[in-house]
Amino acid sequence: MSEVNNQVRLAARPSGLPQASDWSMVAEPLPTPGEGQLLVEISHISLDPAMRGWMNAGASYIDPVEIGDVMRAGAVGRVVACEHPGFAVGDYVYSAFGVQEYALSDGNGVVKVDPSLAPLACYLGTLGMTGMTAYFGLFDTGKMKEGDTVVVSGAAGAVGNAVGQMAKIKGAGRVIGIAGGEEKCRWLVDELGFDAAIDYKSEDVRLALREAAPKGVDVYFDNVGGEILDAVLTRLARGARIVICGAVSQYNATEVRGPSNYLALLVARASMTGMVVFDYAPRFGQAAAEIAGWMQEGRLISREHIVEGGVSAFPETLLKLFTGENVGKLVLQVS
Amino acid sequence: MSEVNNQVRLAARPSGLPQASDWSMVAEPLPTPGEGQLLVEISHISLDPAMRGWMNAGASYIDPVEIGDVMRAGAVGRVVACEHPGFAVGDYVYSAFGVQEYALSDGNGVVKVDPSLAPLACYLGTLGMTGMTAYFGLFDTGKMKEGDTVVVSGAAGAVGNAVGQMAKIKGAGRVIGIAGGEEKCRWLVDELGFDAAIDYKSEDVRLALREAAPKGVDVYFDNVGGEILDAVLTRLARGARIVICGAVSQYNATEVRGPSNYLALLVARASMTGMVVFDYAPRFGQAAAEIAGWMQEGRLISREHIVEGGVSAFPETLLKLFTGENVGKLVLQVS
Repeated sequence: MSEVNNQVRLAARPSGLPQASDWSMVAEPLPTPGEGQLLVEISHISLDPAMRGWMNAGASYIDPVEIGDVMRAGAVGRVVACEHPGFAVGDYVYSAFGVQEYALSDGNGVVKVDPSLAPLACYLGTLGMTGMTAYFGLFDTGKMKEGDTVVVSGAAGAVGNAVGQMAKIKGAGRVIGIAGGEEKCRWLVDELGFDAAIDYKSEDVRLALREAAPKGVDVYFDNVGGEILDAVLTRLARGARIVICGAVSQYNATEVRGPSNYLALLVARASMTGMVVFDYAPRFGQAAAEIAGWMQEGRLISREHIVEGGVSAFPETLLKLFTGENVGKLVLQVS
Repeated sequence: MSEVNNQVRLAARPSGLPQASDWSMVAEPLPTPGEGQLLVEISHISLDPAMRGWMNAGASYIDPVEIGDVMRAGAVGRVVACEHPGFAVGDYVYSAFGVQEYALSDGNGVVKVDPSLAPLACYLGTLGMTGMTAYFGLFDTGKMKEGDTVVVSGAAGAVGNAVGQMAKIKGAGRVIGIAGGEEKCRWLVDELGFDAAIDYKSEDVRLALREAAPKGVDVYFDNVGGEILDAVLTRLARGARIVICGAVSQYNATEVRGPSNYLALLVARASMTGMVVFDYAPRFGQAAAEIAGWMQEGRLISREHIVEGGVSAFPETLLKLFTGENVGKLVLQVS
């Protein structure tokens, strides 16, 4: 076991894309668990677009990460020292352990995971917050019904590809993904069974939607905001539900672009509703069981985009989310 | 009875505020009803912000008025000639008769009104589409509950003042109106019983809301869009419902300003939903009966802003809606 714990701490609040100078790399002595505590050796760290929001000051759905704090992140790892009655050395666990090699915890919010059922990284993705976000956003906030035309943006991203696959599984009439680049689009259609994919980098999304969603869009799961949200607003079916899950195109913007076509909500008697996955925590277990079933039946493919390099690679790896370099769930491998 | 029927027809599609040249005044010979028809002498015409949208080309919740057509408008009047078995000369009736002095109708969509129960103009306002819009927008789309903090913009306008009064009647905890000018604000608080009013012309709406709605906004009934919508978005309570009824600040804009604070929907797990009053037609009768009861009990004040001058005054009267000159329901008196 190492004698130091390398950590990534927030050094400054970024303006626009996070820079190297917004982070500080700190090596702390490895802590020893006191009574009621456990020490976790982190193996995989989740990278999420939402992290950019956590770096900003001010009230949001979650407290900001303070300057000097270890960067918040979901992570999985193995218990390597334990004075907590609920855990044992060797347990594999998930929690918001942060961007560091080791985490000391009092067990609060720590859940055990089983690496024999699925790879550890999968507990950050399809069986973790990513899968929960897709599941509750689509079925609860989006109220998806059988036969619906479902459109999802950021479709090759972690949440997006899960949304599309879950929509197909639950009987959506048509599932259309919006993603950047031919390769991602091909993956969505050929591997994941999307009915169509629109490459926003080479196609006019509005025109492409007219063809791909001839009856209009019943559910739009929005991960990106900006121009794509505006384009989909022009193609809503009567009573459409727009799920506002994120807005990755706007997170680094100094001024957010509001959806200028929002009056389409009136024309279509449609709604736009925000969701935060944490609200559904009491139902996570049930959802994870259902998702695990789909995976075992081979109906839902879980893809992780794993980057090696340890915590020091975190700052540059995070940027992949904003340049659209990842396909599937972006995970940093630590140990 | 006159021998001509003076009409206002759409001559051109306006860009920005409608100009005199966008209208043509036409005098037609008075028609004679054939079998199954009735002729109505129009007494009052409804003026609504939505009219501006009807003048634009393109698909919306209702077909646009075509160039050369009589301008669409709700109106009330008296049957003066009748070959329809369901009506008789002397009946008072409401329908979308248009901006003209007489309307020939086949009786479709024509409803009788009773001038002994309420002034005729009231059937265009509180007992008409205005009242229905307030009622269904607030209680159905907005799902207002007892104790809610309700905010309404365009609060001194036809729909807005009805929304605020209905919210108080149904037990809202706080009702706050946003209007332009001290006089309007005083009217809302002193005469209509609003808990507070914000004068957007002299106050910072965002700051004023912090004081007026300390627990956040549960229901926001939006008639105006633009900066005011953005300001209210910053003050949403958890689970807030925004009703998109209209956007009078944007109707004459060549480029609509989208709500750049829309990600507040995510933070507050809030929704923004469009509504069109026509969808509720099957329930109009029941709602009108309830509203009439409130009026008879003196709990709901109906105020009409009646402009005399006949149909030729229509073009300039319509502009009052966009300059904020009306208080209450703007009505053009014809005969």
